[in-house]
Amino acid sequence: MSQVRVHNFSVSLDGFGTGAGQSLDAPFGHAGTRLHEWFFPTRTFRAMQGQPGGSTGIDDAFASAWEPGIGAEIMGRGKFGPHHGPWPDQEWNGWWGDTPPYDVPVFVLTHHAREPLVMQGQTAFTFVTDGIEAALEQARAAARDRDVLVAGGAQLAQQYLEAGLLDELQIHVAPLLLGDGVRLFDQLGSGQLELEATRVLHSPAVTHLRYRVVR
Amino acid sequence: MSQVRVHNFSVSLDGFGTGAGQSLDAPFGHAGTRLHEWFFPTRTFRAMQGQPGGSTGIDDAFASAWEPGIGAEIMGRGKFGPHHGPWPDQEWNGWWGDTPPYDVPVFVLTHHAREPLVMQGQTAFTFVTDGIEAALEQARAAARDRDVLVAGGAQLAQQYLEAGLLDELQIHVAPLLLGDGVRLFDQLGSGQLELEATRVLHSPAVTHLRYRVVR
Repeated sequence: MSQVRVHNFSVSLDGFGTGAGQSLDAPFGHAGTRLHEWFFPTRTFRAMQGQPGGSTGIDDAFASAWEPGIGAEIMGRGKFGPHHGPWPDQEWNGWWGDTPPYDVPVFVLTHHAREPLVMQGQTAFTFVTDGIEAALEQARAAARDRDVLVAGGAQLAQQYLEAGLLDELQIHVAPLLLGDGVRLFDQLGSGQLELEATRVLHSPAVTHLRYRVVR
Repeated sequence: MSQVRVHNFSVSLDGFGTGAGQSLDAPFGHAGTRLHEWFFPTRTFRAMQGQPGGSTGIDDAFASAWEPGIGAEIMGRGKFGPHHGPWPDQEWNGWWGDTPPYDVPVFVLTHHAREPLVMQGQTAFTFVTDGIEAALEQARAAARDRDVLVAGGAQLAQQYLEAGLLDELQIHVAPLLLGDGVRLFDQLGSGQLELEATRVLHSPAVTHLRYRVVR
């Protein structure tokens, strides 16, 4: 069966995936892009920007294989749009312009029903209002035999973790203490969850950790 | 100059160094010894228990060189004794019996003045009531050219981090989500702190991370 994965989630050593004070102008809060800086020098990222050169080591291997095997994506309302912004009162089609960088069906969990949104390129956003299990069911059907990515934000990953629906976690630990913000792992109660580290790789810029959730 | 180090601090992937509900009977709270289980199969630990055999890989290398280069240790009141226990009202000489496993002078930060406590073996506890900088000054003097270990608990490590007095962090990340407890990194405010990863090693049981604090 296809796996349900949290994939390519960058966090600080103190566990924050986003800084404090997230807003329309500052989608990562006070952290700015600091958590994602390991990505910028890679050849893959530079090519996305139309620039030559760039690093070709471990970080580029992760960057170039950003979402291997992913057939559908689930995202929280806060990843699709700012919490205190125009959406849902005004039209908001995501942070990514007319051609979002998603090549797979994206399911957005929200309390506000909305017609599916088909963008240029291959991205289509479907808005799901009846909870994480319904979203997963739709995403699994769309992904067929490929995996389902739980793309964030942190609260969404936590909900899938607590519901026992996640199979794999892949995170990138940036060498940074942010001190404040939104933690990837929070509000999990005191139920312990066993993991198995299935891959640990690191570069000077970041440590790449992958875990399987043990059931 | 000698370095000030947080060394061999085991945490869960969600950042907890101790579980919830710490007490005299449960010094690690609901986590039990789970965070430290990577240590138990090593040859070094088994030899400490008078048992033969044990693993001889990466984890044993860390176990056998537990505190290399350390000349003095600073610990918080909560590492020396339980927060809701006999001390300071009754006599309490630490968790470790008559012969504590410290071969260096130990400085215990507390609000309760007390005469130095010389134990069997080479351990002597000195109680410091005038703050973290005074404790560090005494520890540096005792360590001479060797390093000073900030041994925990977590709050003590946080205080030295916030004061800009730490040079190095070495932590062991256990493959576990604890969900609740006392975090190693918490209450740091939103001042970002840059780190440099200077060593990443891992075994199936645990991931060993070492960082230098960048100033």
